[in-house]
Amino acid sequence: MEDILNEAGSVTSPKGFKAAGVKAGLKRSGAPDMAMIYSERPCAVAAAFTSNLFAAAPVVYDREIIAGQGKIHAVVVNSGNANACTGERGLADARKTAEKAASLLGCLPTEVMVSSTGRIGVPMPMEIILKGTELAANALSEKGGKEAALAIMTTDTRPKAFSLEIEVGGKVVTLGGMTKGAGMIAPKLRPAMPPQATMLAYVTTDADISVEALRTALARALDRSFNRITVDGDTSTNDTFMVLANGAAQNPTIQAGSPEAQLFAEALAVLAGRLAKEMVRDGEGVSRFVEVNVTGAASDADARKCAESIANSALCKTAWFGADPNWGRVLCAAGYSGIAFDPYKVNLDMQGAPVVRNGMDAGTPEKELVKLVSAKEIRLDLNLGNGNGAFTVWTCDFTYDYVKINADYHT
Amino acid sequence: MEDILNEAGSVTSPKGFKAAGVKAGLKRSGAPDMAMIYSERPCAVAAAFTSNLFAAAPVVYDREIIAGQGKIHAVVVNSGNANACTGERGLADARKTAEKAASLLGCLPTEVMVSSTGRIGVPMPMEIILKGTELAANALSEKGGKEAALAIMTTDTRPKAFSLEIEVGGKVVTLGGMTKGAGMIAPKLRPAMPPQATMLAYVTTDADISVEALRTALARALDRSFNRITVDGDTSTNDTFMVLANGAAQNPTIQAGSPEAQLFAEALAVLAGRLAKEMVRDGEGVSRFVEVNVTGAASDADARKCAESIANSALCKTAWFGADPNWGRVLCAAGYSGIAFDPYKVNLDMQGAPVVRNGMDAGTPEKELVKLVSAKEIRLDLNLGNGNGAFTVWTCDFTYDYVKINADYHT
Repeated sequence: MEDILNEAGSVTSPKGFKAAGVKAGLKRSGAPDMAMIYSERPCAVAAAFTSNLFAAAPVVYDREIIAGQGKIHAVVVNSGNANACTGERGLADARKTAEKAASLLGCLPTEVMVSSTGRIGVPMPMEIILKGTELAANALSEKGGKEAALAIMTTDTRPKAFSLEIEVGGKVVTLGGMTKGAGMIAPKLRPAMPPQATMLAYVTTDADISVEALRTALARALDRSFNRITVDGDTSTNDTFMVLANGAAQNPTIQAGSPEAQLFAEALAVLAGRLAKEMVRDGEGVSRFVEVNVTGAASDADARKCAESIANSALCKTAWFGADPNWGRVLCAAGYSGIAFDPYKVNLDMQGAPVVRNGMDAGTPEKELVKLVSAKEIRLDLNLGNGNGAFTVWTCDFTYDYVKINADYHT
Repeated sequence: MEDILNEAGSVTSPKGFKAAGVKAGLKRSGAPDMAMIYSERPCAVAAAFTSNLFAAAPVVYDREIIAGQGKIHAVVVNSGNANACTGERGLADARKTAEKAASLLGCLPTEVMVSSTGRIGVPMPMEIILKGTELAANALSEKGGKEAALAIMTTDTRPKAFSLEIEVGGKVVTLGGMTKGAGMIAPKLRPAMPPQATMLAYVTTDADISVEALRTALARALDRSFNRITVDGDTSTNDTFMVLANGAAQNPTIQAGSPEAQLFAEALAVLAGRLAKEMVRDGEGVSRFVEVNVTGAASDADARKCAESIANSALCKTAWFGADPNWGRVLCAAGYSGIAFDPYKVNLDMQGAPVVRNGMDAGTPEKELVKLVSAKEIRLDLNLGNGNGAFTVWTCDFTYDYVKINADYHT
């Protein structure tokens, strides 16, 4: 289904959604730093948030909204300040932002969700935030999706937004999405499984769908998207993935367990998967995208542990940067991942070429391997020969630029 | 006891030990690449090895020797090739090396241990190894300790060797040690706990000590030395820490459980601790040494998890490189470490200055903090306010040079 993704799409592709991205003044660079998504029709909502104990104030606030099971109309996002480790004041600031948006949009505060990303531990400059909320509300437009995708960026080098269409009961249903990375990325999102990074991701859809079906689809999409990526292994305090469905497509309501629910879930997984991949490709300082497929593990959980150990290994990541096919580092990372397997049953392929057989060199000439791992996108297939457990992680290399970006971030 | 460490000491400081470091020809650079330690008197031995499933051939071989419970006379070390992921051939090569040394030294092959560090997955060039073993045997000298410390180096920038003396039953007992790092360092050594990296460490002593007392002392020393360090979070296939005791000091035999055993264990922990610290200080590309103290955890195991999560965080490590007091990254890493605590009870100090109180900014001016974390050695004290569990990890920053060393290692 990935081939039907629309590269020109965004969160305003589905009917009935407006969005905006504005310059509130949070960023010294003067870049856009606040975004808003709005639907006049009330939206069913499903969301997943970071598993970090220091969950940011907007995450704490949003969890309450989700627990309330009501419908929502809007999301307000700021990209200059994380509003994390800010205590009671932080929570009050999240609430004030929602109240401000609600008063401007003519809805209830409990119908507005908020997200933040940026530096941890600094109180929100509320004058700027409230002014920005007003600017964003005034700028809302049916063509504002790309502006919103720009405004949620931090160290991202490009906006990431797509859409896709499916047919449900004779009606065209559209899903649109946007996301931002690009460091503190190793999301372990609940439900399903938790993520790392500040990753923020939003999907809008004009589908008419029950909350139950929407939440099931989101949980299923997570393991095929944000919960399988890692840039640096750091799980942020602010990770958020939410899906808003306003029903404007006027399709027969999609109920949980139906074939239509499966189709919708598949579409959501494809869109979220592409957003997650793009987040890694645009990760901080990234020069190579790497897919780590682990099969033959005793369980999926074991395969995941092993794939994450490889994907987060500083030595594997620097080797990928250097186009070094050093498979010893890959096996080493599998060997300390904490799972059980027989080292002499392990096979490894890189870009489809045999590299390791039975835990030893497969004999493919070094020169050939160097050429293969010089590609911009590398694929590793590791079979542990120990069962049917499998998991795939999308990750990237570790470069001078990653160090530069993160050693300089503060000043 | 650390103040009595002798910086001029080495593995040949204790009576009855000879050592050598020679150029066998494994390294393209032409640097010394094989070392030998020898005692004519048979040595009681205790050792700890990597917990990596892909344990290298010399580790597999040495474990058998240790299981045999016999005494040993020599250790042969090469620093050009890891002899890991080399299958049956690798094991045969480790055996051949021991046999060669035994025939040269006039002892049994089961009285010789072997260690390797270097590239994984490449068969040992046995002609060079056997010639080097002969060169080393011929070069053995009571002054050879510093040469040996040079010859075991890989990406280390300097040899690391020390000694110290204690008095047991009216006799002077000497302990001498050497170690090498400097990447793939996050040792999780068994027993006690497993390590990561290729770290190799050797301690010789002329103490007369029972095998039981020696093994207890080694296990105790581990948690105060090699098992609390991490450079890059990668646990090597070859990590080895061994202690040889030849009894040449002619002290009354130290028995397990005695006050003398406690004194010896303390001396070993101090020596091993210093070797471990020096390994981190000389870690790949390191510009800053960082001590992470976690207290107030529900258990020591929890404190360890939390301290390791911080010490291995790419975002914390790059911030330390940039002299950025960004405490949000430290709390973030604690928050995703997988242990339980109340974020609003957390306190953090940097270099003794209050940084976080009750999970929020303690108000120490930014400028002051920047000055504090610009030191070459930084200390973090994180109190989780959740119990009496404590653990300390020694680590380092993440620099351009780490990336350079490891992206270029292969070519």
